[in-house]
Parts: sequence; C-alpha cells; structure tokens
Amino acid sequence: MSVTAAKGFVAAGCHAGIKRRKFDMAMIATEDLQPVSCAAVFTQNKFAAPPVELDRATLNANGGKAAAVIINSGNANAGTGTPGYKNAQLMAAATGEVLQIANSHVLVCSTGIIGTPLPMEPILSHVPKLAKKLSVEGAHDAARGILTTDHLSKEVVIKGSTFTIGGMAKGCGMIAPNMATMLAFLTTDADIPLLVMQKALKAAADATFNTLNVDGAMSTNDTAMLLASGKRGKADHGEFANATLAACRDLTMQMARDAEGMTRMAHLTVTGAHSNEEARIAAKNIVENNLVKCSWYGGDPYWGRLMAAAGSAGVDLNVARSHVAYGGVVVAKAGVGVEHDGDALVEHMLGDEVQIEVHLGTGHGTAKMIGIDLGPGYIKENSKTS
Amino acid sequence: MSVTAAKGFVAAGCHAGIKRRKFDMAMIATEDLQPVSCAAVFTQNKFAAPPVELDRATLNANGGKAAAVIINSGNANAGTGTPGYKNAQLMAAATGEVLQIANSHVLVCSTGIIGTPLPMEPILSHVPKLAKKLSVEGAHDAARGILTTDHLSKEVVIKGSTFTIGGMAKGCGMIAPNMATMLAFLTTDADIPLLVMQKALKAAADATFNTLNVDGAMSTNDTAMLLASGKRGKADHGEFANATLAACRDLTMQMARDAEGMTRMAHLTVTGAHSNEEARIAAKNIVENNLVKCSWYGGDPYWGRLMAAAGSAGVDLNVARSHVAYGGVVVAKAGVGVEHDGDALVEHMLGDEVQIEVHLGTGHGTAKMIGIDLGPGYIKENSKTS
Repeated sequence: MSVTAAKGFVAAGCHAGIKRRKFDMAMIATEDLQPVSCAAVFTQNKFAAPPVELDRATLNANGGKAAAVIINSGNANAGTGTPGYKNAQLMAAATGEVLQIANSHVLVCSTGIIGTPLPMEPILSHVPKLAKKLSVEGAHDAARGILTTDHLSKEVVIKGSTFTIGGMAKGCGMIAPNMATMLAFLTTDADIPLLVMQKALKAAADATFNTLNVDGAMSTNDTAMLLASGKRGKADHGEFANATLAACRDLTMQMARDAEGMTRMAHLTVTGAHSNEEARIAAKNIVENNLVKCSWYGGDPYWGRLMAAAGSAGVDLNVARSHVAYGGVVVAKAGVGVEHDGDALVEHMLGDEVQIEVHLGTGHGTAKMIGIDLGPGYIKENSKTS
Repeated sequence: MSVTAAKGFVAAGCHAGIKRRKFDMAMIATEDLQPVSCAAVFTQNKFAAPPVELDRATLNANGGKAAAVIINSGNANAGTGTPGYKNAQLMAAATGEVLQIANSHVLVCSTGIIGTPLPMEPILSHVPKLAKKLSVEGAHDAARGILTTDHLSKEVVIKGSTFTIGGMAKGCGMIAPNMATMLAFLTTDADIPLLVMQKALKAAADATFNTLNVDGAMSTNDTAMLLASGKRGKADHGEFANATLAACRDLTMQMARDAEGMTRMAHLTVTGAHSNEEARIAAKNIVENNLVKCSWYGGDPYWGRLMAAAGSAGVDLNVARSHVAYGGVVVAKAGVGVEHDGDALVEHMLGDEVQIEVHLGTGHGTAKMIGIDLGPGYIKENSKTS
C-alpha cells in the first residue's frame, strides 16, 4: 500500500482532466486529519515553481507540520509568477476547506509542462472528489495520479523493527518534454523528532535522488517530503535513517529504470580524488558528458572519453596514477590502454547496467553517481512539446 | 590560399594511410625555413594529449618560435602516455631532419581517436613526401589533411591594410566518435611582437572558438596557433587584433555549420547578469542543457527550459526582472509567458540559426555563446567507435 503502508495515512488519486486520459491528481492525508511532522527537501533551482515557494513558506511558518498534500500532474505551475502562486494557494485552500483543516497544514505539489497557467476548474472541482475517496487502499491510485511520462508507478515499503516507511515517486529530473520534476512522498508511523527526520531525508536524498543524473537538468519543481504520524512509538534514529535511505534508494532505482529514452544505466564510482567533493564534481562532469552517454548507448568501452571528461572537470587529476575499469576489468592505467579480458568486457558492456570506476590518482575521495545513456529515444521524447 | 595567403609560408597535405582513403597528414613551414614568432593557445583539459604537452614545452623553451608544424589526423595520440610523447618527439625529429631545421623549431599536432598508439610507420614515411610537396599552392591539401569527420575543409583569408592573415581549422570540440580536437592554424606576414600576437590570439579564441559549444566536451588536443613571418613590415596592433578576431570568427562559423549531427544553430546572448563572468556561466549552462538542445532540434520555443537552465547555473537570477526573447520576440517577462507574435516566432524558430536572449535581471553582465541542437545525427555519429 506504499504511501499508506505506515499507520495513520490515507490517500487517493483520480483523473481530473488536466491530462487527456490518465490520472492527474492525488491527495495524501493523515487518517485523523491532525497535522504531523513533515521534513522536506526542494529543488535548488532559482527559477523554482510557485508550489515549491509556497511549501517552503508554509513549512517555515508552521514549524514543519502538514496534515494533507494535494498534488497535480500534467502542469508544473512553473514560470507562472504571481498568478501561479495564487493558484497554488487556491489548491491548498480548497483542500483545507473540504478536509476542514487549516490551509497552513496543506502542502501543494505540481508537475508537468512549464510556463502554462494551471487549469483551475478541473483541479478545484476534483479536490472534494479526492477527499471523498481518501483511504488506505487509495495508495496505488495516488501513485498513478502523480505520474507524467513515467511508464510505471513507483512505490516502496520498508519495514523497520518498530516502524514502517512507505512511499511513492515520479520521474526523475527534467527528463521529458512537457514535464519538470521529481516528486517523492514518504510517510512513516515512527515517532521521531523533526530534526532527525529532516537530517535523515536530506542525507538519503543526497545519496540517492541526487546521484541520479538523467540529463543534468535541475528541475523547477523537485520535491521530496517525509511525514511521520508517530502512531507506533519511538524509533531508533540510526535504524530510521537507514530505512529512509533504503526507501529513497529503491525509488531512485525505479526512476532510473524508467528514465525517458533510457536503454542502459551506468553506475559510476569515482575514486582516488583529492576529496569527496572533487570526486562528486568529476562524477557529475562524466555522467553529463554527451560523448560518454552516447558510448554507453553504443555499449562502447571508450575509456578515453571518461578520462577526457575527468580531465575537464576542473578537479585534480594525476594521470600517471589513474586507472579506468568497466565491470572490474581494468582497461587503462596511467592514461594508457592496457591488455585486458576483451570477452568479459564486451559481455559487461552489453548488459542493462554497466559498472564503471574512474580513479583520479590524487587522494582518497570517492563519489557514486548513476548515469543514463543518450539514445534516440531521449531526443524523440524531448524535441517537441506537443 | 588560406594558410599560405600571408607571405612567407608554404604547406602540403597527403594521404599517409592512417585513415583508409582521406588525406590524413599536413605540414606547414616558413618558406625560408627560418623560425618565426609563434603564439598558441591549448586545451585546458588535464588529460591533455602528448603533442599538446610537447608543443607547450617546445614554445616555453624556445621563447615562442617555430619554423614548421607537422600534423596528422585519424589518431589523436591522446591517452598514450610516455610512448605517445616519444612518438610526438619522433614526428618533430623526422620533420626537423628532412627540412634541416632544429627539432625544437617543429610543432606537432594530432587529432582523431583517443587511446590508440599512433601508427608511426606511415607517418614517418610520409614526412619526407610532405616536405617535398611544400608550396604556396599546397594550402588546400593541408586543409584537407587535418580534417577528421568534418564534411568540408575550413579556410579563411583576412586582408589588413599592411598585412594578411590566413588560416585553416578542423572540427570543433569533441564532436565525433573517433575524434578529439579543434585545431586552428593561422599565419600572417605582419611584423608584430610575440606578446601582441599572443594577446590577440587569446582574446580572439575566447570570443570565438571558446563560445562555440557543440557538446560541452573539452577536448584533449585543442590547439590554435598563429605564426608571423614579418615579411611585410609593421602592423597596427589594433587592426591586427581585429583581423585575428575576424579570422577566428570566420573559422568558428565554418566549424559550427559543420558540427556533427547539427541541424540548427543558436546564437545565445545572456544579458542582465551580475557580471560578464556570471553571464558566461549561465550561457554555458543553457547551451549545454540537453532539454534546451532538443527543443532547438524540434524548433520549439520552450522558454521555460531556458529559464530553468539559467536558474540552475548557480548564478544570480532575479525572475521578476527577467525576460526571454527568440529572434527579438519577447515570449516571457518576469518568469511568465506574455502575448507575442506567434507567426513571427514560428518562422524564426524554423530557420537554420536561432537568436535567443535570456535576460537575468540582476545587472549589466553579458555573454554570447553559440549552441548546437541535439538531434539523432549526433547520437548516430557518437554511439559507436567503429
């Protein structure tokens, strides 16, 4: 039951008419409609969408509480200025009214095309319908209601010893023509301090969502939130952080497998960097490099491109101590190709997931990042709005 | 006669057998084989190729002099380590021997696949043949000998009041499967101090070659050099700098039009930035964004993607004072779409070259950059080495 697997939460999804046929709205609420602790992380994009601005302000003002979340897909309400902000407020107000809770306990998320006003009529007329449908069984419908060009809904349940974390998510990064956003909604029945939740969510997002790089584009609407009902008592903080990490990792892999136009995924580890931060910068430069991405699409172990991308990342690189490996097969040392098991290499490169290590030879910093290949499917999905 | 248009230079090109059929070697020399002033700019990539390292060392040691340049295409001699450096030295030595000049007055450039040893037998056996063919008429052959996946050779002649600048270049950035490098060779008969030349070349490269962004990939071999024979006396420094800029600009446009898989070019101007440097960072982030590049391919005026890319560049952005225009048609102000002439917009977007302005609303910094669309042709060219 994903987002309602933890005690104390209900959800619903429906087709409101923003999109032609598919579900395009969802609601999550606490079962007793009481506000609970809510941690959240948002996009760092300075052109953040109005719902992101509103949620930031709401959580800031009320000290991190929410009783309900209203979500629409098909339109990101981004690049919509002051009218867009007012529309986000209207969505919160309509939800607050029908659930009889304070507007300031309602969070709002939108995802879809940028720069087009939200169609408020279908949205507002379906808020009461969503409220009526709220149930534990509504989780799947809610998971469908937040999708954009995703092919499959993305749900997760992690059972801890004294608590459960459930969640749902949609497409990662700005991966599709009309869509902006990764959205992730997690709920738990653990009784856990807000600061611990916030720290766990931030750390988990950095280690999972933020390591998945579909196209280097940072969305205007990215949001991940975690609500805790506290219905099942205290949780061990370490176990809770690990469970949050596991939930985010599971959703991240579901998003990676469903990335637009994706045919092959690369698990890149940069090692031997001057620092972890330099490793992260190099990893980002490598997974965003179109020549590298094209070589993954072609199943081509073109290590020279990896080194060239590392060399242009602006971080320390000691070529003489560097090496590159695909699937554990070292293909280059000190910047020069070396003898290796060609059959093992070919087999590895043609798999769905490629493991790559680039060692920079300057220190002990490491970073992991998941890259997606660049094939014709991506262009087909992204070259036309309509 | 491009690279031999200025008095005092000869050139030649030939097919040595590195590539199957096409010309793959070139030589440039001073007519009297005397060393002349040589300014140069090289890639900033830390995985720079051995010929780049050798040329840097040569010019550093001899105070910026060269009498000849030997060039091969089809193999970049990059990712080849110490043996690669020795091979670059062997190319210089063979050229020095046949021309009877010091090895330290010979520069070496290579372009092509990365990570494969140079085939030295055909290269060394063709150095004497190139030397025999050196002539003023050999410029076209030389321009062919440096090409990789370029469809057309790129040549330019700029006539100043007291001097001529001629030049040739090949493909821009790491735009092709087997290729690494933009190479540009300029010659002039002006008598001009080396420091003035170096400054003019650096400024021109920054304003032209470095504003062309095919795929964000910084090559291992990028090199631009300018040799001055001094055969026609003193040149006005300002006029010389302008002529150098004009020559580089002309070659840059030839490279942009010949970019792999390119169907449409975008002339992006970022204005209203906090500083010119912030404008440059934003421009780079925009032209490298795959969603933006796909929208150019599709002829889609999707301004929200431009703003989203600007918003994620890490520079100051004041959405309330921002605007976006395509071909002078303002489509968004303050982060919101505005009424505009749709017919004019469609017509502009379907042209070969799109003009875009993104105004960040925070200051007076500006930067220009040329972006290339991302279409299926790029992937086709770059997904397989062979």
